[in-house]
Amino acid sequence: MRAAALLLAVSLPLAAHAQTRESGPWWPNREWGAMDQAGASNRITPEKIVAAMRLVQTGRVYEIGQVYERGMPMGNTRDFALRLVPAIEPTGSNRVLYNDEFLAAEVGQVGTQFDGLGHIGGEVRFADGSLQRVFYNGFTSGEMNAGTGLKQLGIEHVKPIMTRGVLVDLPAYKGVQRLEGGYEVTLADVRGALQRQGIAESSITPGDAVLFRYGWAQLWSKPLEYNAGQLPGIGIEVARWLAERKVTATGGDTSTNEVSPSKGQGVIIPVHQELMMKNGIFNIENLTFEELAAERAYEFLLIATPIRFKGATGSPLRPLAIR
Amino acid sequence: MRAAALLLAVSLPLAAHAQTRESGPWWPNREWGAMDQAGASNRITPEKIVAAMRLVQTGRVYEIGQVYERGMPMGNTRDFALRLVPAIEPTGSNRVLYNDEFLAAEVGQVGTQFDGLGHIGGEVRFADGSLQRVFYNGFTSGEMNAGTGLKQLGIEHVKPIMTRGVLVDLPAYKGVQRLEGGYEVTLADVRGALQRQGIAESSITPGDAVLFRYGWAQLWSKPLEYNAGQLPGIGIEVARWLAERKVTATGGDTSTNEVSPSKGQGVIIPVHQELMMKNGIFNIENLTFEELAAERAYEFLLIATPIRFKGATGSPLRPLAIR
Amino acid sequence: MRAAALLLAVSLPLAAHAQTRESGPWWPNREWGAMDQAGASNRITPEKIVAAMRLVQTGRVYEIGQVYERGMPMGNTRDFALRLVPAIEPTGSNRVLYNDEFLAAEVGQVGTQFDGLGHIGGEVRFADGSLQRVFYNGFTSGEMNAGTGLKQLGIEHVKPIMTRGVLVDLPAYKGVQRLEGGYEVTLADVRGALQRQGIAESSITPGDAVLFRYGWAQLWSKPLEYNAGQLPGIGIEVARWLAERKVTATGGDTSTNEVSPSKGQGVIIPVHQELMMKNGIFNIENLTFEELAAERAYEFLLIATPIRFKGATGSPLRPLAIR
Amino acid sequence: MRAAALLLAVSLPLAAHAQTRESGPWWPNREWGAMDQAGASNRITPEKIVAAMRLVQTGRVYEIGQVYERGMPMGNTRDFALRLVPAIEPTGSNRVLYNDEFLAAEVGQVGTQFDGLGHIGGEVRFADGSLQRVFYNGFTSGEMNAGTGLKQLGIEHVKPIMTRGVLVDLPAYKGVQRLEGGYEVTLADVRGALQRQGIAESSITPGDAVLFRYGWAQLWSKPLEYNAGQLPGIGIEVARWLAERKVTATGGDTSTNEVSPSKGQGVIIPVHQELMMKNGIFNIENLTFEELAAERAYEFLLIATPIRFKGATGSPLRPLAIR
Repeated sequence: MRAAALLLAVSLPLAAHAQTRESGPWWPNREWGAMDQAGASNRITPEKIVAAMRLVQTGRVYEIGQVYERGMPMGNTRDFALRLVPAIEPTGSNRVLYNDEFLAAEVGQVGTQFDGLGHIGGEVRFADGSLQRVFYNGFTSGEMNAGTGLKQLGIEHVKPIMTRGVLVDLPAYKGVQRLEGGYEVTLADVRGALQRQGIAESSITPGDAVLFRYGWAQLWSKPLEYNAGQLPGIGIEVARWLAERKVTATGGDTSTNEVSPSKGQGVIIPVHQELMMKNGIFNIENLTFEELAAERAYEFLLIATPIRFKGATGSPLRPLAIR
Repeated sequence: MRAAALLLAVSLPLAAHAQTRESGPWWPNREWGAMDQAGASNRITPEKIVAAMRLVQTGRVYEIGQVYERGMPMGNTRDFALRLVPAIEPTGSNRVLYNDEFLAAEVGQVGTQFDGLGHIGGEVRFADGSLQRVFYNGFTSGEMNAGTGLKQLGIEHVKPIMTRGVLVDLPAYKGVQRLEGGYEVTLADVRGALQRQGIAESSITPGDAVLFRYGWAQLWSKPLEYNAGQLPGIGIEVARWLAERKVTATGGDTSTNEVSPSKGQGVIIPVHQELMMKNGIFNIENLTFEELAAERAYEFLLIATPIRFKGATGSPLRPLAIR
Repeated sequence: MRAAALLLAVSLPLAAHAQTRESGPWWPNREWGAMDQAGASNRITPEKIVAAMRLVQTGRVYEIGQVYERGMPMGNTRDFALRLVPAIEPTGSNRVLYNDEFLAAEVGQVGTQFDGLGHIGGEVRFADGSLQRVFYNGFTSGEMNAGTGLKQLGIEHVKPIMTRGVLVDLPAYKGVQRLEGGYEVTLADVRGALQRQGIAESSITPGDAVLFRYGWAQLWSKPLEYNAGQLPGIGIEVARWLAERKVTATGGDTSTNEVSPSKGQGVIIPVHQELMMKNGIFNIENLTFEELAAERAYEFLLIATPIRFKGATGSPLRPLAIR
Repeated sequence: MRAAALLLAVSLPLAAHAQTRESGPWWPNREWGAMDQAGASNRITPEKIVAAMRLVQTGRVYEIGQVYERGMPMGNTRDFALRLVPAIEPTGSNRVLYNDEFLAAEVGQVGTQFDGLGHIGGEVRFADGSLQRVFYNGFTSGEMNAGTGLKQLGIEHVKPIMTRGVLVDLPAYKGVQRLEGGYEVTLADVRGALQRQGIAESSITPGDAVLFRYGWAQLWSKPLEYNAGQLPGIGIEVARWLAERKVTATGGDTSTNEVSPSKGQGVIIPVHQELMMKNGIFNIENLTFEELAAERAYEFLLIATPIRFKGATGSPLRPLAIR
């Protein structure tokens, strides 16, 4: 039936609802107001950008994202189908040929990806005892979701991310090639690795991005191993520390950037909830740091700005580290 | 039938072919060798990046790309279909909710887009009299095209573009709100506009990006007017000047960044051919410069790096100008 | 994040749930058991098929569906994007050429379509006072929905539909070219039209398909008029009569086959709910009966079997009337 | 760039071209005229339909197609991605819920499929010595192909196929469970099998469909084995016999319905060329005949009408055998 437009036309009085949301138990507070949709990208101020640019000394660029291609590691409910749509015959007196491409994919949730704030939420008990299905800043499934994309918390709200990036090289600290699947990185690990790298914890200031090397990108060309189920990663402890350090984004060289399986009975991707839903912090997945690690390049300008697909839950990305 | 894999498995001896291509009349010469696929992005050297970063003084960021959304101006043979794929019920003891998005689109050829070197070519007569269907550097349709994406000249070969951007504000020079559809911008116009802006032509050095404001982004919210057919833009004269200045990229605030209709009987998008096919120069379309113009911000760090979708002809983009 | 597979892996104990569903107020009873997913297609028995085949006397075939194409009338949240994926060069010693096509579309909900039982449901109050979100036979959103398709009530469960079709020609009865937008066809209209056609109401027996001509297919080539919002169609009165007559399917030459706007404050597509959710009766939309009407062909073998796309909510269709 | 519409707007004077095509060496002659696009479906006359319907005695229906689903056997350059697009919240005073699905796939070339006449062609030498790229009836790539679908020989031209189907059960004749990969079925095999089944070769008359059981559907649930590369099937000998018998369609329970690898140095899918390009005969792939074989049901009404997706090269299908 044709009535989709009709069904979707019932709009919600957001402002009124925002007030209602004020009565909720929002975490830890609302740094940028009850209607904010940009989350921790608000921390990328002009001053922050200028300071980050000053980190560039030689102009050496590191590609820390993967190429998007057929057969790359993916969850088994996602697809990446790119097709060439070529002109068969030349056209015009100047004999032009052209090619287009058509892509059908979970474009913001395959390969190197920037998870937006509409990607992960949870069913949460509010102060009045009600259970509500909420995402960052208390936006509810009901007011966010429409068939043709998110009405709230779409990726287009994220501000450009050019900031100081800090890489935490965990295998180098642990003296291994890569961490084992299922290993939860502790805060002590993070502090030890930073110390080894000569980076003071206190130097991590609001708006920075902290990236974790687990060594997992070594498996990128082996999709079955890459996504075998057991993944090294941070847990709630480090996630809370990231929130305290007021970072803008974190990232890692696995598909989740958090330990899997999660600790706790029946718990699923709690780091995602902690970062995105509670703190508006972005998560970048399927990165690769092998080159940075080989050159002991632990501090850099990070450029990691998502594409503004209106209403998308995430974005493909070409993240760059520059020194 | 299932035989696509079989049909596509016949690979071409590229190296051998490259030699054959040497006998062709390639333009104007092969600055980066017969097998190069990165074109003018090779001009973005570390030194160029460092110099461009130095242009940033205040950290003010200008979004010069458009948001991708249903109903934006598009050619009538392209689509942009984004769908939300939500979880209906919370999962796990921590009651996780999640949303994905699925996109079906000419992802590199809708909205703000970065045209790659596999997008436009032509049927060209070679020295031996043969007609060949070639793209940049002489790669032929036959060796490039496969159903699942370009085998040569895919957008993934483009190097990161962080460079000096120069905006040429043509309506300001002409004293109009926006140029008229069908008006071809002359080299004299460009020189006059640069002079008005206090930018020496000689300051445009290899690797720079020169962007043209026609004022057309004012029509972005009116798709029928935006793509009515007659477009202001540069022609062959300015395209050749761009090639002489050895820019890495050009761009404009229309869907083609070249005058339409083209001058000459039956000629179709000749500027595209001149830039991409002959000179390996990239073209960025559907930009917006209204904010830059309002602040007379004509020189800036431009960040305009395409996403690495393997085998794509172009890329969506979130281009940023930073001062 | 990669955890979609994980999130979706939590399966529901359907059999147990079915028992719970027994306590619900199901309508009007469960003719085919609590686990049935085929609905009124169960009425197409071998005897019914043999009898329907006997209606064919001359072999004259009428196409009563539309061609699927770019630009056809559609709701504004749906798309139909077909692309040709050709081989550029011949392959093999026998110089084979081949073309594929790639389609991105709401494949079961655009153009001529067969609405399945997973398409329309409702939030319903059960005997125990609880509100539940249910579809046909009490299947709930929670147990049905997954990102990659319906886990219950997918279109693949529908049995082949070859049955007696009866066309009710309403414009012919009313003496107009086509009914007016917003006109609700009454049961008296239906009975009057049948009488005019010489078809006894009692001849409509379980498993038949009753199709309504409103004359709206005359507007198919004018998408804006076709979907202007006000549509002629049946209402709840006729829908209940269809359920009493125990038809397998109904259909019409509009995008809903029900009057729009609906009667009653804030009511949306109630006929869909009455037919599908309560009675398991299928609805076929965007048909065309101009040729049948011109030849006064009111009774025929109807072939209208949906494609078995697993987990789809509907199907494209090539419905045929044969005499 | 936006100019796709422009590029595609150059239309070809088909009628004139048809005349030119007359000078070509068309095979074996043009039974239905130089502009025909329906091929052997023209043989399904009203008389043929009436006769086929008379074959139905008991109304027993056999599903001889497969369900379309994620993970089914497919060539490695194709995809089948179906996503559920649900409404999250009920709408309207009657609390409607609805689900849509979005599909991205080679919709006519995955799973059970009906190959149309625009799917396979070849580069052919004409009487005047020229090499031309042609499909059925001499339509050329240049006049057929456009980005948004075939301009000629699209699947929408195929007439409804309801005809006598004859199954040739080869494993039963050979006394094996299934034929071996790479085995070419000979005409002697076909004749032997028909004799065993008590079906006179002379009973196969114009418009019939002849279907081949190789037993390969037994492997459908094992995609790697199903498409391991070596397939049993008919070769050119049987293809020519089918053309002599003037069948409308053939089909089989493998992904090609022809032996693979093909006989002859470097030859690729020659049966496809023989049937489609030269004779306008349709080919149906990925069928299943296990149930028919078990009941020795060798003759039946076959319903196998493709969906009319304009400009598609093939179609999904729900083929039915009825007795």
